[in-house]
Amino acid sequence: MNIAFLGLGAIGRPMAARIAAAGLTLTVWNRTGERAETFAAEHGSRHALTPADAARDADVVITCLPESHHVYGLLDGPDGLIAGLKRGATLVDCTSGDPATSRKIQAALAPHGVEFIDAPVSGGVSGAEKGTLTVMVGGDANVLDGVRPVLANFSTKVVHCGGVGAGDTVKAVNQAFLAIHLLSAAEGLATLVKEGVDVTAALEVINASSGRSNSSMNLIPERVLTRAFPRTFKLALLEKDIGIAAGLARDNRVPAPVTQLTADLFRVARGELGELADHVEIVKMVEVWAGVEIK
Amino acid sequence: MNIAFLGLGAIGRPMAARIAAAGLTLTVWNRTGERAETFAAEHGSRHALTPADAARDADVVITCLPESHHVYGLLDGPDGLIAGLKRGATLVDCTSGDPATSRKIQAALAPHGVEFIDAPVSGGVSGAEKGTLTVMVGGDANVLDGVRPVLANFSTKVVHCGGVGAGDTVKAVNQAFLAIHLLSAAEGLATLVKEGVDVTAALEVINASSGRSNSSMNLIPERVLTRAFPRTFKLALLEKDIGIAAGLARDNRVPAPVTQLTADLFRVARGELGELADHVEIVKMVEVWAGVEIK
Amino acid sequence: MNIAFLGLGAIGRPMAARIAAAGLTLTVWNRTGERAETFAAEHGSRHALTPADAARDADVVITCLPESHHVYGLLDGPDGLIAGLKRGATLVDCTSGDPATSRKIQAALAPHGVEFIDAPVSGGVSGAEKGTLTVMVGGDANVLDGVRPVLANFSTKVVHCGGVGAGDTVKAVNQAFLAIHLLSAAEGLATLVKEGVDVTAALEVINASSGRSNSSMNLIPERVLTRAFPRTFKLALLEKDIGIAAGLARDNRVPAPVTQLTADLFRVARGELGELADHVEIVKMVEVWAGVEIK
Amino acid sequence: MNIAFLGLGAIGRPMAARIAAAGLTLTVWNRTGERAETFAAEHGSRHALTPADAARDADVVITCLPESHHVYGLLDGPDGLIAGLKRGATLVDCTSGDPATSRKIQAALAPHGVEFIDAPVSGGVSGAEKGTLTVMVGGDANVLDGVRPVLANFSTKVVHCGGVGAGDTVKAVNQAFLAIHLLSAAEGLATLVKEGVDVTAALEVINASSGRSNSSMNLIPERVLTRAFPRTFKLALLEKDIGIAAGLARDNRVPAPVTQLTADLFRVARGELGELADHVEIVKMVEVWAGVEIK
Repeated sequence: MNIAFLGLGAIGRPMAARIAAAGLTLTVWNRTGERAETFAAEHGSRHALTPADAARDADVVITCLPESHHVYGLLDGPDGLIAGLKRGATLVDCTSGDPATSRKIQAALAPHGVEFIDAPVSGGVSGAEKGTLTVMVGGDANVLDGVRPVLANFSTKVVHCGGVGAGDTVKAVNQAFLAIHLLSAAEGLATLVKEGVDVTAALEVINASSGRSNSSMNLIPERVLTRAFPRTFKLALLEKDIGIAAGLARDNRVPAPVTQLTADLFRVARGELGELADHVEIVKMVEVWAGVEIK
Repeated sequence: MNIAFLGLGAIGRPMAARIAAAGLTLTVWNRTGERAETFAAEHGSRHALTPADAARDADVVITCLPESHHVYGLLDGPDGLIAGLKRGATLVDCTSGDPATSRKIQAALAPHGVEFIDAPVSGGVSGAEKGTLTVMVGGDANVLDGVRPVLANFSTKVVHCGGVGAGDTVKAVNQAFLAIHLLSAAEGLATLVKEGVDVTAALEVINASSGRSNSSMNLIPERVLTRAFPRTFKLALLEKDIGIAAGLARDNRVPAPVTQLTADLFRVARGELGELADHVEIVKMVEVWAGVEIK
Repeated sequence: MNIAFLGLGAIGRPMAARIAAAGLTLTVWNRTGERAETFAAEHGSRHALTPADAARDADVVITCLPESHHVYGLLDGPDGLIAGLKRGATLVDCTSGDPATSRKIQAALAPHGVEFIDAPVSGGVSGAEKGTLTVMVGGDANVLDGVRPVLANFSTKVVHCGGVGAGDTVKAVNQAFLAIHLLSAAEGLATLVKEGVDVTAALEVINASSGRSNSSMNLIPERVLTRAFPRTFKLALLEKDIGIAAGLARDNRVPAPVTQLTADLFRVARGELGELADHVEIVKMVEVWAGVEIK
Repeated sequence: MNIAFLGLGAIGRPMAARIAAAGLTLTVWNRTGERAETFAAEHGSRHALTPADAARDADVVITCLPESHHVYGLLDGPDGLIAGLKRGATLVDCTSGDPATSRKIQAALAPHGVEFIDAPVSGGVSGAEKGTLTVMVGGDANVLDGVRPVLANFSTKVVHCGGVGAGDTVKAVNQAFLAIHLLSAAEGLATLVKEGVDVTAALEVINASSGRSNSSMNLIPERVLTRAFPRTFKLALLEKDIGIAAGLARDNRVPAPVTQLTADLFRVARGELGELADHVEIVKMVEVWAGVEIK
């Protein structure tokens, strides 16, 4: 089975590396070409100069880009994916995308006999490296079944969520929860610090109690209390993600005031902390507001 | 060691029962006297008619009431706790209280040679029944050490968080997180339902991903998707709790917009759903807003 | 000059009536045909059966519909506006629309030599009846100049705000302010009532002070304190309007938390109060929340 | 009639000056003594070294301080107001205070035969200079009547709002409206600027329409569009004022999400802009968020 992988970013690169390591025939493409060239050299895979070239002969094309419109933007033109894709191929989009654009991509591919599923992943860089990602899939169940062997190279859990766009939707809602948990954790912990309470003791309690979350159990202890704030997943991308979730709520006329407010405050944070900030750095915005460090 | 237990509500009753079962000398009091009478008859303990009477001869007095001011209100007068308490006794307040009132209680007891710690618990009714509660303690470490054997009857984890009020503070922040996680989960899941996504599949993904919380892992699957909504912990009390956390943020000049908004929306919910509603029923408010059931 | 007027709703009808009264040649169309028929009979104007028929021979076509997409939906097809419009005609859209759709309408008309301006109005039914509306215009200044004599029939102030969409934008922002002023006035006045303060005295002060707004000076005294709540402008439309403003803020990456929250609470109110409620009835939502009447 | 005036700040100073100009016997006191000394020299009034000294022989004592607790803090001790006040005197507190503290002040004065009214003012520095302030009064109507001749020196409108605290309450709500109108105006106008709309044209429309407020009609054109941002009334004080209003809403269980959110965002702004910033500078926070200037 021939695989093409487009988008060798923080998550995409280790995903592609696992596919290469599994011995599948792999062609890679990346917007910044050197990154693909280096990857190809290191992993014994082919390096394509255009999306069309990458897609040629591929049974499965995997895309992993910042936003859905980046994928959509690769479809057309003489160098575009559609020019290279063969009938019967499947495009698996692992971008944390938005459902509306995913449906547009599906509609653009259908006349060419190319199947589409949206397949965002969770588990982060380390999950990608270990091959323990979770994949949330929107699209036809049969199409999904056809690519499961490929997904198995980088994931241990694949969940079929519904039609095209359902994977994006679940991912966006998961990310909204993450954003809300992080921001509200910062609010509460900044209060504890100012009250003179020992944060480590407080988290020991909370993480054994009803207020616990992945943020309080993992992100805050490992990244905030240590003051490490490693840059593994951009705040700018989480801002984009909760923006998708907030938009879905509005489009469906679901009043979601906590989600909307948090989306707006992440917009503030992205402006103040910049495009390179890690998502956990939202905590720093609250720290500045409160005049305190959480440690 | 003689123990007095005041407040045989949903949590207090099984806590007191475990103390009785351990063979300690126990006197119980409850505002509604029959409840204490019945308890005493069932558990072979003494039933006091007044707080003063309950406190007489007690080495440790445990209170477990809805709010701190209820405890404060038991202190004075001929029938009050102070009239009965002996020098050297300790008042352990397991109420989910507020730090300011806890400090007032401590100040009122100090001239009488009575020690005080605030010791709210988490773990719910089932934790109380099994004796697996977590206790978060504010107060002097030596005083805490003196009552650890008593706490051991109903808890498996005791965490010293700081001076008097620190236990209340940690509890309030935990409850704020719970309230925020529940409300935001409802917003996100209502959106998923309206998008036609299978909620069970979505939760399978989220609960393996960065957006998970105790609410998404336990409360939503067990109580919402089943439409069971058992009444185990009142929304009115959670509204009170997040109100304490929101107040602490304001008093410390910590901007906490997500906490403040959620506190206000729980105020709305308490008005709309009533004093008897369970805390998880906040989900129903969002369901009505969105015109959808999460199942 | 021949005029066509499409959309004889609460505002459109008195606007069209003033044009008829001025002696201009007027053709009217309305989705519910009887309303146009009656109007034509009463005002000596022609009644068209289709948009195409209404537009035929018209120099200026005025549309006044609930939302921009309703106008866009009238353009195409054998009975559509484009089929009837002559080169050199101008479409003046008085709908409280959204800029993106206005730009789509402009783009659809341009190949047919038809000019377009968006021209929402303010001043309400009574302003329309008296001919004292304010018109906020987006589009080419020369095109606006060409239709000023027509606008003069129902307005006393015409303000050119910028290119196509600018009129919509200003209108949406005005409506957002109205929505925010009303909702926050209800919050504050409900508090005053519960504090036992005389609301009439309070408004006498506020309306002489820095907190005054059109809402506190006119809407609240005339419609709330009297408990009259006349139905002159639908809450559903104001919810749509602030939604447009909130969307423009997001599209431009302007953090606007007060606007976003108010938009979401109007979404709640629209669901609870229904499609027929007047915009001032948002006050009733707060009254129910607070358990009090503002009077 | 002998008058004492305590607190010669931005508003207090011109108020006292008008009393002096009216020929009443005036004694002044100020925390920073030189300011009182200078004032006394310039206006031919007496300069007291302590509140007790100022109050001696006074029929009416007027206080005008930043917060209620500052007034409360002047009452006791050998140099305190109570030590100097004679039976039958009246304390008129023009501070923008909080009702709870006003009631404590009343209760402290009553045993000494001293009457109390809370009497916050609106109209700003220029209103104080011209003697055109509005006074909102809480307290006994007869007590108010007794001091009306004094109030007449600096005000043209005196409104009796209710019992002690009612003046504070109305003032706080007025200020909350001001804060909300300013912040939301900034959100909307920043959006207009980014849409390329001319702000002056937009305000011409809005100020003739339903979205107008004192902020849009006066503050924004005079202080923001000109980029003058004169420092006439501190943002820190407005933050305190909306905090009082938000607290009254909570105490009365009035859900007031827009007020609570705005109070929190003013807390953020006070931290970011500092203690000296003018209240209108809240606009600058939104400008930084949006990356745009409103002009």
